[in-house]
Parts: sequence; C-alpha cells; structure tokens
Amino acid sequence: MSVLFVVGLGPGDTTHLTQQAKKAIEKSSIVCGYRTYIQQIEGLIKDKIVYSNSMGGEVERVKKAVLSAKEGYITSLVSGGDASIYGMASLAYEIGFGVVDIVVVAGVTAALSCSARLGAPISDDLAVISMSDLLTPWEIIKKRIEAVNIGDFVCAVYNPKSKNRTKQIEYALNRFYDSRGDLLCGVVKDCCRESEAVRIFPISEFDYDFVDMRSTVIVGNTQTYIKQGKLITPRGYGV
Amino acid sequence: MSVLFVVGLGPGDTTHLTQQAKKAIEKSSIVCGYRTYIQQIEGLIKDKIVYSNSMGGEVERVKKAVLSAKEGYITSLVSGGDASIYGMASLAYEIGFGVVDIVVVAGVTAALSCSARLGAPISDDLAVISMSDLLTPWEIIKKRIEAVNIGDFVCAVYNPKSKNRTKQIEYALNRFYDSRGDLLCGVVKDCCRESEAVRIFPISEFDYDFVDMRSTVIVGNTQTYIKQGKLITPRGYGV
Repeated sequence: MSVLFVVGLGPGDTTHLTQQAKKAIEKSSIVCGYRTYIQQIEGLIKDKIVYSNSMGGEVERVKKAVLSAKEGYITSLVSGGDASIYGMASLAYEIGFGVVDIVVVAGVTAALSCSARLGAPISDDLAVISMSDLLTPWEIIKKRIEAVNIGDFVCAVYNPKSKNRTKQIEYALNRFYDSRGDLLCGVVKDCCRESEAVRIFPISEFDYDFVDMRSTVIVGNTQTYIKQGKLITPRGYGV
Repeated sequence: MSVLFVVGLGPGDTTHLTQQAKKAIEKSSIVCGYRTYIQQIEGLIKDKIVYSNSMGGEVERVKKAVLSAKEGYITSLVSGGDASIYGMASLAYEIGFGVVDIVVVAGVTAALSCSARLGAPISDDLAVISMSDLLTPWEIIKKRIEAVNIGDFVCAVYNPKSKNRTKQIEYALNRFYDSRGDLLCGVVKDCCRESEAVRIFPISEFDYDFVDMRSTVIVGNTQTYIKQGKLITPRGYGV
C-alpha cells in the first residue's frame, strides 16, 4: 500500500525540523499543506509538486493528499508545529486510513517552542486548549477552562484570537483571574520567525491588542514567577 | 556572558533531533546529561567532554553545566523529549540564570512522539500529567486527575510507573473509568527505539504489567475510537 507522511514542521523556520521530517519531505514527490506552512519549507520543495490551499480547506487538502498517495506518489501532508495536536494526523486517519498507509512524523509544538522563548513557564504538568470554537463547541472549551483552574495547570492557549473571534481569550483569562488570582502570562507572536515578538504580563495588565492568530499565550500556574524578565515555573527541586 | 544550551533530544534516536538541537550539541565542548540520554547521542559527542550521572542527580548535573558554561566552555545540558516539559530548562533557569545566558532548544515531547506511533489519539486539547510524586505532591496530582475528567481531556500520562511506585497509574485509570467510562488507552514503551512496543486497550482490560518507567500512556477522551488497530480522536470535521 502507498504511504502518506503526515509531517509536523515545528515552529517558524526549517532549523526546528527534525531529521525524520526533513527526510520524509525529501522523499516525497507531492507536498500538500496550508499556504503559510508551504512557505516555511520553500527551500526543500523546489522540485516537487505542491498542493496548497487556504485555512478552512483542510478536508479538501487531506483528500487530495490521500488521492496522491493512493495513485502511487510518495506524498507529505505538512503542517506547522506537531502533526497530531491541532495538526492533520487525525483527519488523515479518518479520511485515508485503509486506503493508504499513514506514517505520522511528530514535530515541536508551539507550547514548547514558545515556552523556550519565554524562559521556562512550562516545566511539568500542562493543559493545552484552543480558543477556536470552529471545531470544538464553546461549551466544552468553557468546561476545560474551569478544569485548568481546578488542576492549577500551566496552560498553553492556542488560537487565542482571530479577526472575528476576539472575546474568548478575554473570557478565559478572566476566569483564571477570578479563580487563581493575577497569574503571569507570556505571549509569543510569530515564534522563531524574523518578526518574532515576546511579551510577559500579569493577567491584570494583559494587552489584548498585542495578541493575534499567530500568537500563543502561556498562562503560568500559581507557582510561576518572573526572574530578570524570564517566566519560570519551578519543578519542585526546592533550589 | 557564556551560553548554556538546554537541549531537548526528542524520543529514541537521533532522527528526531531538530537541526537546531544538533547544531547546539555540535558547537558545545561539554555535554551534560542523564546516562540514558547521553547514550542516545553517542555518535554526536565522541570528541566532547561528557558529564553524565544517574536519575536523582539533576541538581548536581545542572550545577556542573552552569559552572562549565561560566568557565567559558560552550555547554549543552541535554534531556530526552523536550527541554521544558519534565526537562531541565526550569532548573537551569533557577540555578544558572544571571550567572550564564541560557538558550532553550525545544524538542519533540513523548506525548506527541507516542501519539504518532498509536495513530492520532491526540488531535486537539490535551492534558499532560506525570504520575511521579517525587517533585509534585500526590494531592495535587489527584486534583489534576479530577480536572482531566471535568474537561474530558485526552490525557498523556508520563512516568506511569517505577519500581517503587506502581499504584498511581491504577488510581488514575480507575478515576477516569468511574467518571467517563471505559476509555481507550494506548501505551508506547521505548518509543522510537529498537525495543519499541505498542499496545492499545480499554481501561477495563489495561495490562498494568506491560507498563514501566520507559512507557507513556495516552488515555483517549469520550470521542476516541479504534480503526483497524489505530487510536483516533476526531477533531470535529465530521467526515
């Protein structure tokens, strides 16, 4: 059976690509992905057939990738960050498994690349939530926000804002504030790109205008502190 | 000021190393890490001074790495998976920040490398919890287990078991079962190594003997299903 690689590219530029991801793309004759992610690997795909489309075109893109692989072309379906979390692996399995063989190639997800840029706000137990209610009902997201409070989790918030969706991140931070106080937050915009921008503030001074759809917000837990401009959550070694 | 790289190696073998991680190690003249992780990159460190010690020696290891960097040797402090989550970044900041400059190089964490081996059990919102109560009080871990139930999160369980700590994973899965029913679980042992072993079962048939300290357990949410031996959590596209 033909193989479809579902590849996580990591953040920003190709220096965060794993060797395995690079190899999968190099082996492929067809590469499918959302436009922004295709641009991220331009140098690697010059001699390849590229199928790219815009956000919202996920199902069509995956179908195209499955069809390409089925026809015998080695195909990579790529996305930023990791291939599984908010990536294309699940949809590839749902649409293509049984028709083609699927190999998922994991990548560095935004929570971890952004944590690295902020200091070490993520150090142990973690919750990851997206503010996008396109695929997950808002009622479920709200439950997860409360769950984060109950567990006093450090929380990585993906898709904090889009043009038409601006209030969800405000709701979440307000709920965190009401339950656990003025937690420290880090925001990384355009992580590992030239335009990268990093900001740290307590919830009470959070700059909502700074956040956009290319940002990830990491909200510390009650133990998180600032040391010389870096965000740190101690792991419990008591040093 | 001298630089200390804190580097996540990803899972198993060097094919999951990012280019940036490889470069940081190549640039370093001293490499510090837990024995198992040093073995993982043997081919990369033949000409380097290596400081490795055993589990529990984290504070000593980080102090050694900070001292090496302070003395002017480019130093890498390495660990498996990512550098932040259950890695050394936080401790490096706590002990060494201000004494040396710290550059954290993110890696592929076990939740995501194991998800890739199981199918796509992780597809969106996620909770990550360690069963080790060495650094986190068991009372807090218990709260987080309940929070996972409330949010119906897919949950990646790190450090599910050790020689002297066997009951925590059983407690967690029982709580998940009582609250959300017979959820599907995937276990990956020795992810991306030659000895890798993968198993999938519902909580009611979970083989606790299969799990050890080199395993990661991924517990699906109420939407997770099995398709031809693979674990899939749909993302909500409704295909």
